[in-house]
Amino acid sequence: MKKYVLIVAGGKGLRMGGEQPKQFLPLKGRPVLMHTLEQFYRSDVAMEIILVLPYEQQNYWKQLCEEHHFTIKHRVADGGESRFHSVKNGLSLIETPSIVGVHDGVRPFVSVDVINRCYELAVTKKAVVPVVDVVDTVRHITNNGSETVDRSAYKLVQTPQVFNADLLLKGYEQPYSSAFTDDASVVEAMGVKVTLTPGNRENIKLTTPFDLKVAEALL
Amino acid sequence: MKKYVLIVAGGKGLRMGGEQPKQFLPLKGRPVLMHTLEQFYRSDVAMEIILVLPYEQQNYWKQLCEEHHFTIKHRVADGGESRFHSVKNGLSLIETPSIVGVHDGVRPFVSVDVINRCYELAVTKKAVVPVVDVVDTVRHITNNGSETVDRSAYKLVQTPQVFNADLLLKGYEQPYSSAFTDDASVVEAMGVKVTLTPGNRENIKLTTPFDLKVAEALL
Repeated sequence: MKKYVLIVAGGKGLRMGGEQPKQFLPLKGRPVLMHTLEQFYRSDVAMEIILVLPYEQQNYWKQLCEEHHFTIKHRVADGGESRFHSVKNGLSLIETPSIVGVHDGVRPFVSVDVINRCYELAVTKKAVVPVVDVVDTVRHITNNGSETVDRSAYKLVQTPQVFNADLLLKGYEQPYSSAFTDDASVVEAMGVKVTLTPGNRENIKLTTPFDLKVAEALL
Repeated sequence: MKKYVLIVAGGKGLRMGGEQPKQFLPLKGRPVLMHTLEQFYRSDVAMEIILVLPYEQQNYWKQLCEEHHFTIKHRVADGGESRFHSVKNGLSLIETPSIVGVHDGVRPFVSVDVINRCYELAVTKKAVVPVVDVVDTVRHITNNGSETVDRSAYKLVQTPQVFNADLLLKGYEQPYSSAFTDDASVVEAMGVKVTLTPGNRENIKLTTPFDLKVAEALL
């Protein structure tokens, strides 16, 4: 079945404390986003890559691609007000039947193995997300304090979150809700069961200067 | 008030895949444990440091201290069957009234600021743990699947966990329970309320080769 990935890079980069949106920060001399796109190309050269980027950053991205001789084929869609709207814009470019993954632009360390597995599982399971164990003790904040909870009952969710495309399109026809923290929660709101599969621990989301130090170490 | 820290290093290091227990792995040329002890020395040179180490590793540690000219004063207590028993052994060396912190030997990146704050708060609050936000989406595993939960209601717990020493001693007189995943849960089992304070995100626990790469980047 035809495969798509929406790589969502909405970051204005404020949390990094600099001018540069974090998806453009250099990792081993190249913008984070290029590393991210490459992993999907490595998984399947025929995968259709759609990069969802704020309109005002698109010229800069084009310029970066030229400078770095970045030739992996992809289309660009306009970022929206929120992640929900960005994904919706990206989805308007896909055709069905197909499998579509949604991936954070600032997760360049996703393994090809995880990408492959999520797409394969999505063919039958329709909604698949990669998860990793929580290694620290977890506390739940309650009305009158906090309590330790059994961490083995919790998982941390990564991307790509991969879906039967018709299902995801239907999910994104729902009105926006603040409970939609990721794509899985969007399809879940329709009563769809989400399948979990192990992610790779290195697949961190680069959101702080600390993460970037980590990232430099991993490359 | 007199301050103690129990630095617990029970690791046999199996998860690292090597022969060397992870507390001895070199970070910038020196064993992880030396970096950890140094942070507490930096917080307060008068802090009494008790290192809880498996008996069979104690000669090796002594040898490492000589090789690296490591002169920060500390005592060594025998590690036990489990973390619970190790802490209990360490506690047998302290005097009260005092404030006692329990810290993972493989968390060398705790900031001096976090150590200071935890000890200060413990004087009045009696039970203090440093926590950080969860940055990923969190899923709760249920009997018939899993569900997204509000991640802002969860915190990840670090160390040092710092206590009024009489309170912690009393906690450790309870029979061992598998629900005791950290020291906070031990005092909590007596109905004591635990105070949360922000930790530092870099204060990761070195448990996998991935963590060690991260650690090298941070130094």
